[in-house]
Amino acid sequence: MALVVDRIGTLVTWDEEPVLHDAAVVVDGGRVVWTGPAGRAPSAGERLDADGRCVVPGFVDAHTHLVFAGDRSEEFAARLAGAPYAAGGIRTTVAATRAASDDELLSRARALAAEALRSGTTTIEVKSGYGLTVDDERRSLEVAARVTEHRTFLGAHVVPDGDADAYVDLVCGPMLDEVAPLATAIDAFCEEGAFDEDQCRRVLRAGQDRGLDVHVHANQLGPGPGARLAAELGAASADHCTHLTDDDVSALRDARVVAVLVPVAEFSTRSPYAPARRLVDAGVTVALATDCNPGTSFTTSMPFVVALACRELGLTPLEALRAATLGGAAALRDDDVGHLRVGARADLVVLDAPSPVHLAYRPGVDLVHRVIRRGEVAR
Amino acid sequence: MALVVDRIGTLVTWDEEPVLHDAAVVVDGGRVVWTGPAGRAPSAGERLDADGRCVVPGFVDAHTHLVFAGDRSEEFAARLAGAPYAAGGIRTTVAATRAASDDELLSRARALAAEALRSGTTTIEVKSGYGLTVDDERRSLEVAARVTEHRTFLGAHVVPDGDADAYVDLVCGPMLDEVAPLATAIDAFCEEGAFDEDQCRRVLRAGQDRGLDVHVHANQLGPGPGARLAAELGAASADHCTHLTDDDVSALRDARVVAVLVPVAEFSTRSPYAPARRLVDAGVTVALATDCNPGTSFTTSMPFVVALACRELGLTPLEALRAATLGGAAALRDDDVGHLRVGARADLVVLDAPSPVHLAYRPGVDLVHRVIRRGEVAR
Ligand SMILES: [Zn+2]
Ligand SMILES: [Zn+2]
Repeated sequence: MALVVDRIGTLVTWDEEPVLHDAAVVVDGGRVVWTGPAGRAPSAGERLDADGRCVVPGFVDAHTHLVFAGDRSEEFAARLAGAPYAAGGIRTTVAATRAASDDELLSRARALAAEALRSGTTTIEVKSGYGLTVDDERRSLEVAARVTEHRTFLGAHVVPDGDADAYVDLVCGPMLDEVAPLATAIDAFCEEGAFDEDQCRRVLRAGQDRGLDVHVHANQLGPGPGARLAAELGAASADHCTHLTDDDVSALRDARVVAVLVPVAEFSTRSPYAPARRLVDAGVTVALATDCNPGTSFTTSMPFVVALACRELGLTPLEALRAATLGGAAALRDDDVGHLRVGARADLVVLDAPSPVHLAYRPGVDLVHRVIRRGEVAR
Repeated sequence: MALVVDRIGTLVTWDEEPVLHDAAVVVDGGRVVWTGPAGRAPSAGERLDADGRCVVPGFVDAHTHLVFAGDRSEEFAARLAGAPYAAGGIRTTVAATRAASDDELLSRARALAAEALRSGTTTIEVKSGYGLTVDDERRSLEVAARVTEHRTFLGAHVVPDGDADAYVDLVCGPMLDEVAPLATAIDAFCEEGAFDEDQCRRVLRAGQDRGLDVHVHANQLGPGPGARLAAELGAASADHCTHLTDDDVSALRDARVVAVLVPVAEFSTRSPYAPARRLVDAGVTVALATDCNPGTSFTTSMPFVVALACRELGLTPLEALRAATLGGAAALRDDDVGHLRVGARADLVVLDAPSPVHLAYRPGVDLVHRVIRRGEVAR
């Protein structure tokens, strides 16, 4: 049944006129079918009175690691007390994930996806990467498949043990054979202590040969080849991008690679913040994501990501909102979401605030009044 | 009817043994009547199964400005874009507050107090200070009286217009006469551009003569006499405390003045963070508060304050939690709240997490599972 959301104070559509005031939106069949001035909407079966509130596209969280078991709160507390972040912490989660049953993994992932939905995330990407065996990576992507349509194979997260090149052979061979039908994209952690440029290139090309989109964990802990590799391969996104040279920035722009920034990881690990302003000013498409994972960024809250992007990354509230919606959709190469143009999937958030500025102006406050996903009221 | 909260994974009481594991708490008549090991609690009419979750004392937010009208999101957005914070912005809110009806002020304050309660704040202090006439300060404190038992007269917030000394005469004279029966404490903004040391001393002593507790907005925008004045007067608290000399710290400690820190104000105005570590290490009692106000810190979320205190103020999660509960109670000189020792008011929060570390480990996530206020389930 059609639904009209009427008396919207500020409506963000990212259409030609990106922001409307005193507006309405009509959804039908799970799609946006009309946007325009309040009170002029075609009649619909149901009516939701926004009473002056702001309506924005549902958040698109383009980078999460939701499939895992265990807890790393002690490692987190130790880091607060001064211990540095070590990528090896990932192995703690790998051990717990392998030991967990399918049901445990699924109920945990579902709980986090539900938590994300309550805070306005209507599209979410989920990576594997805490299994690191053929069987455990398959299990992880099977769980992901029950949670979302955007599933990334991250077999090349860390080397579980032994020889790195032999593990890369496994990832590109039997592991990819097993998981390719379950995944929509492939990713690799290109960093000292994880995989080097050549190893990442092998993994990502093998995924591309199976028709998977490419993401790269790039330039997180220091300068490196990740961003340029993403550009070389025509990747959908380079993620983290904390340490970028001007050449890296140009390469991302020229290859139209989306830079997926994850400021809560930087907040939680006390790392430098990514150069969002430089990226935006250079014309790179920027996305914001949670990087939800138990080691470095255990949040599902895109509103908090937006607030932090305004405080720490130098983005304006509208730039941050755009990155958290349309930017995320670009990183996932999903034209259906991240905007509210006619034809879009009817994923939208009614904020308990008159404008999107309040996402930054009211940090920590739960401003999500209603979430509509595929045309249905989900909160 | 008595209620037992059982199967608590971690129970923070701030009793002699401050943190219990596998515990239960029994409340009756609005008070804590028993704490101890799970499964050994005396029987009670009602049972809430915490299922391993963490239970902490309700948050005590010792510094808010909830009585106001209007919105300063445009000023906030301008500041994000580079404009400095000017105390003069307070006057924008004064004009809107004077123009608002009593009903408008009350419904706004109630909505914010309800928002705070949903995020676990069970005791809240509310200041006047956006009226600045006899009539408007009285109205503001009447509204505060319908929201909380902790009401602070902040006539000396800024000089509304004209001569500062003449305004101080008004504050200490007819204004105080009018509002003293409504207030429980007095406060003054001791800062360049607001009131100088002598003016603050006059105001605060006049309040003390009426039996009011003393708070001081001290050392926020730069070094100054506020903290030392608080010590001289035996104030309950010195608030903000961003710029402190070692002598200021010693004075606060020796006079047992609580330092109320408000990191979200510093987050939102991009100011330096208060020296919490120095204060704690020197033996000063520290409280954490929201400073909820429409200009510089428009949050009601004590969980966010705790997360920020861990990230930016160098407090451990337990230190931050203590400051957000017991510290706030000390600033308000209210022994009944901020802890869960037998006899305490039955104000407690069930977190959707196994330990209080998660308040920092999961930033931006709504972790409040249940709020019990005066023995009743409030969320
Ligand atoms: Zn990641
Ligand atoms: Zn204040």
